[in-house]
Amino acid sequence: MAESTPSLQPRINVSVVSDALLGAWKAERLESRRLAADPRLHTIPGQSMEEHRERALQQLHILVENGAIQRAFPTALGGADNHGGNIAAFQELVLADPSLQIKSGVQWGLFGAAILHLGTAKHHERWLPDVISLKLPGAFAMTEIGHGSDVASIGTTATYDPETEEFEIHTPIRGAWKDYLGNAALHGRAAVVFAQLISQGVNHGVHAFFVPIRTAEGEMLPGVGSEDDGVKGGLNGIDNGRLHFTHVRVPRENLLNRYGDVAPDGTYSSAIESPGRRFFTMIGTLVQGRVSLDGSAVRAMQAALAIAIRYGSERRQFPGATGRESVLLDYGQHQRRLLPRLAQTYAMAFADERLLTVFDEVFSGAKDTDENREDLETLAAALKPLSTWAALDTLQEAREACGGAGFMAKNRIVGLRADLDIYATFEGDNNVLLQLVGKRLLTDYAAQFKNADRATLARAAASQIGNRVSRFGLRQVGQTIADFGQVGRSVESMRSSAAQRQLLADRVQTMVSEIALALREATKGIPKSDAQARAIANEDAFNAQQHKLIEAARAHGELLQWEAFTEAVEKIGDAETRQVMTWLRDLFGLGLIERNAAWYLATGRISGQRAESVTAYIDRLLRRLRPHALDLIEPFGLSPELLRAEIATGIEAERQEEAHAYVEAQRAAGTWPVHEKELRKRQRDAAKLPAVPRATNVS
Amino acid sequence: MAESTPSLQPRINVSVVSDALLGAWKAERLESRRLAADPRLHTIPGQSMEEHRERALQQLHILVENGAIQRAFPTALGGADNHGGNIAAFQELVLADPSLQIKSGVQWGLFGAAILHLGTAKHHERWLPDVISLKLPGAFAMTEIGHGSDVASIGTTATYDPETEEFEIHTPIRGAWKDYLGNAALHGRAAVVFAQLISQGVNHGVHAFFVPIRTAEGEMLPGVGSEDDGVKGGLNGIDNGRLHFTHVRVPRENLLNRYGDVAPDGTYSSAIESPGRRFFTMIGTLVQGRVSLDGSAVRAMQAALAIAIRYGSERRQFPGATGRESVLLDYGQHQRRLLPRLAQTYAMAFADERLLTVFDEVFSGAKDTDENREDLETLAAALKPLSTWAALDTLQEAREACGGAGFMAKNRIVGLRADLDIYATFEGDNNVLLQLVGKRLLTDYAAQFKNADRATLARAAASQIGNRVSRFGLRQVGQTIADFGQVGRSVESMRSSAAQRQLLADRVQTMVSEIALALREATKGIPKSDAQARAIANEDAFNAQQHKLIEAARAHGELLQWEAFTEAVEKIGDAETRQVMTWLRDLFGLGLIERNAAWYLATGRISGQRAESVTAYIDRLLRRLRPHALDLIEPFGLSPELLRAEIATGIEAERQEEAHAYVEAQRAAGTWPVHEKELRKRQRDAAKLPAVPRATNVS
Repeated sequence: MAESTPSLQPRINVSVVSDALLGAWKAERLESRRLAADPRLHTIPGQSMEEHRERALQQLHILVENGAIQRAFPTALGGADNHGGNIAAFQELVLADPSLQIKSGVQWGLFGAAILHLGTAKHHERWLPDVISLKLPGAFAMTEIGHGSDVASIGTTATYDPETEEFEIHTPIRGAWKDYLGNAALHGRAAVVFAQLISQGVNHGVHAFFVPIRTAEGEMLPGVGSEDDGVKGGLNGIDNGRLHFTHVRVPRENLLNRYGDVAPDGTYSSAIESPGRRFFTMIGTLVQGRVSLDGSAVRAMQAALAIAIRYGSERRQFPGATGRESVLLDYGQHQRRLLPRLAQTYAMAFADERLLTVFDEVFSGAKDTDENREDLETLAAALKPLSTWAALDTLQEAREACGGAGFMAKNRIVGLRADLDIYATFEGDNNVLLQLVGKRLLTDYAAQFKNADRATLARAAASQIGNRVSRFGLRQVGQTIADFGQVGRSVESMRSSAAQRQLLADRVQTMVSEIALALREATKGIPKSDAQARAIANEDAFNAQQHKLIEAARAHGELLQWEAFTEAVEKIGDAETRQVMTWLRDLFGLGLIERNAAWYLATGRISGQRAESVTAYIDRLLRRLRPHALDLIEPFGLSPELLRAEIATGIEAERQEEAHAYVEAQRAAGTWPVHEKELRKRQRDAAKLPAVPRATNVS
Repeated sequence: MAESTPSLQPRINVSVVSDALLGAWKAERLESRRLAADPRLHTIPGQSMEEHRERALQQLHILVENGAIQRAFPTALGGADNHGGNIAAFQELVLADPSLQIKSGVQWGLFGAAILHLGTAKHHERWLPDVISLKLPGAFAMTEIGHGSDVASIGTTATYDPETEEFEIHTPIRGAWKDYLGNAALHGRAAVVFAQLISQGVNHGVHAFFVPIRTAEGEMLPGVGSEDDGVKGGLNGIDNGRLHFTHVRVPRENLLNRYGDVAPDGTYSSAIESPGRRFFTMIGTLVQGRVSLDGSAVRAMQAALAIAIRYGSERRQFPGATGRESVLLDYGQHQRRLLPRLAQTYAMAFADERLLTVFDEVFSGAKDTDENREDLETLAAALKPLSTWAALDTLQEAREACGGAGFMAKNRIVGLRADLDIYATFEGDNNVLLQLVGKRLLTDYAAQFKNADRATLARAAASQIGNRVSRFGLRQVGQTIADFGQVGRSVESMRSSAAQRQLLADRVQTMVSEIALALREATKGIPKSDAQARAIANEDAFNAQQHKLIEAARAHGELLQWEAFTEAVEKIGDAETRQVMTWLRDLFGLGLIERNAAWYLATGRISGQRAESVTAYIDRLLRRLRPHALDLIEPFGLSPELLRAEIATGIEAERQEEAHAYVEAQRAAGTWPVHEKELRKRQRDAAKLPAVPRATNVS
């Protein structure tokens, strides 16, 4: 087939796009990339679990030596109060070794951050210096065997004893054992333990406690037990394990008491009156885990696509009409597999930058309001599921696009995929997080109609009024959705940002309003006096809508990504770069519309003909973007030390060149054997014989 | 929420469904399951690559000792000429250890089968006894670094020298090195090497040669080189590696000469005149690899779903309105995640049984015609991609549905997923295989219109005439597609088998006819004399249609699965069982229609309202099937020895029971602390204070 020439105009300016991706914490990212290029920090494929765990621990010491982990801690303790920069730098570490990354996240992002955010000055002074220096490795003991995402229901108790002024930490049942905790099986000397705080016969809900678990020599302390989780699907450099506590006593002061305290006599106090709000405030301080994973997933996707696109640009397979074998990336299907995922990766990278910004504004205190914290949590809960799932999907597609070579550990993809698998359920199960977003959308929606009756709601659902679905730090969409006939009328108009936004936002709004209406109908006919029956009816109605609500939350997250992408493209000054990036954004936006075409068609937003022309236009965009594919992986800044994939080093191009040169030399020397097929053709031509019937499954 | 009771009528008869799944080779399957239950054959998670490779080799000896691998070989050599039973038994081994399974497939299904099917009596007598006894471990050297699915273009040559009556095997370039070969890095003593056969200056295309590679002591023979592929994403019990040959000479008799031979003087002869047909005939004998993987993927899916459904039936999370926490499988989203995949697994199991039957008919000689061989190859090429992809998707969904527990090696899912990853690209890249199916659909389509002009074709495309898309051993669909308005008019009618078949078949037919039309248009205006320009135009047109063609092939494969499912259900005599299985079949069929709703809507096959009611009916089916979920995993026959997943042993139910009993005991004793939330509610009720505003993100 006709080969794509890489000289087509326009071309992107790599450094412009690179800067857009590096974003506000460019210096931190570049510094962290330099560190991640250090061979001492790299995964060794096939290493035993025991060796890998030991190596990961030593790698954490290297991070400390290089001043790589203090950024988020207070200046007074040697940190930099740099929250956005801390996460940005952390995200880059995924390309050194995800085990090292997540183990450092356990130590400083969870264990240390819990002391920082849930504790007070006395705790900071007492423990944080040793946490930062890694003299005190620790575990973050929140998740239990019996309770994952539902932290509020954990079974571990911390019962206050005013006689001794101690808390008694206890895991009364097997389901209350803490599980999957990094540093729990081997290296942790203490843990931040989440437990139901009970004092004076009242359960004040989940609070965090500092609990020593091992001596400096690695012996378990009395009453503390540990169990090794053993081999996992990935991240085997981390010593995950279980912890259980049998009437373990810690001093009253070990309660991390920023949001709730117990006086010596057992009197409980908190600045936050509502136990529910208090719980979510405490849990909310831990949002940085989700923020960290979002960008880490993006970084892994970038690596996967860089490998597959580089290989796909060199690898040739199946002879074409022009004589030579065709380059993989010139095949229509190969473009369909890789280029929309490239567009998606850009969208997710820009969305993550936006998330980091909101996170930094809140955690630096610059814009630390309740509303911003809530928006931050919702934004993280919307983006982390989409990016961690997309990472698994992209790594797998890249693996398959590289064939058998993709399965070799030396080509990186399978290792990253195995390690990132768990990102989909840790720091919040993706489905649970999206449900959280969906509930927030419903709450926002309901707030608009606080005093509306059913008829008003039904009208609203029918006319898709609703203006709050696109907030959370990003721009608002118009109050009312205009006539969609106009938008759907031609593909020309669907290329415009306004039309794409309208189509994407309309879907979120309509789905949310339909769900709200269905929920309102649930208790119809059940008397207000029968609270239990109404509660059950509400719950059943919610359950019936659960799948749709999660889909609505996904659509909301995609809209946010699309908006972040669009905003980033609009900021690009260089016209040629902006042109190519706009095609890429269109590929993302129209790809979303194509994927959800059933909804747009069923609801009459677009016609069947229009849906088909969206697909045709996507095909055109793919052909248009194909010559830019190699340029578009350049801005990821993946040096050979970061990528470390043999097939992405140019080795395949060398082999192809060797093969081509060999055939040419043989042909020139007249030693290239004629193929029997060609011989028969010549004989047939000479004798004018009819052709042998063609095999039907010629590939 | 209201809990599902497992006592709902009707109930399935487990042994009836079990027999339907066990199919024609029940005895072989049960025998293989007994063997697979032997702990000596089980994976040890975390074992080093070196130890795992040695263990897998020893496991192969255990298979030999147990008479587990001879079935497909001739009776004269101690086999049973039992081709279907051989594959059925092989498929079951995936639950012992996929490394063991695939290594045995390399030895007997590829290396041994190549000698059997491509060689003649002298080869059988000389080598097969040692191959069967494992005295002679061997590699199957087809794939090259430079050529995966395009076997016809491999670079290794076998040049005949009449002076010495030898072939010289040579890999002239790096790209021609054989790669990814099991038994190549360590254990192989010989290899069946695929090479371009060159004699008297003519290349007669790819043929297979028996080539010794190592001494009994493991030393490489002169001219033969090996390179270890090292650690892979899975299957690390197999010693995959590369082989290269530098002017290695083997006797003329080492050509496996069933389909082509060279006389002592170098004269080439073959019973198959066309080199293309000859090549595909030789390659076609290797179809059993694809057949084997199809059913193995199904078996892995069954295990994944058994684990996730068992766990989802016991695990409780988030308190419900009725007081206790809800069982995961009672959540709408959880049902959406697992039950349609359960239906799909059944469809794929029945389709695999059909494939095995066709395979056995051809290989036993009972129905060994050219047409049946072609049908078999197309059927395998359609089913293997869908099932191997579905296995990865299902294993991943099951992993996530089990949360962190799913990530632990002791719960099996991650190990199976890692090992099965490569099934998507070996024995033929899934996309390449589907393209092969697509081309076959086009050929069949064209055969109907051999002498038709453009206008006739266009009319055919418009009216969806075409009657051959559903052959390949399965029943034909009607000649013409009836009025779809009628079918689409109500969900009632869409529950009927006839309506589902019509909708599914219509999609395949219409897509194929549209692609055929587009391809016909490609050379419009290019003079017949310009063959090169026409070839390029044809190729470009094909490339533009490639994605759609692969989608059409997928739709075709899904139709075949649906038909196999339907046929199996119709055979069930027990009315209650048939009822439940029909719901499950409907879930599969309507699930396909829902997934492709955009196509049905865009082409006017169904209305928007109908599309929404398909979704609503699927939701009803999910609720209806939910109480049967545990019953429906029973027929998989997964004993604890086969499943070996801690969380599927009932351990979670025990923990839930312990937790429940603990709370109840505390309550009874009056020692259960009141929650602050409840206390505040009581105080508010007493003082009639307004409630604290509800947190928006209560989960």
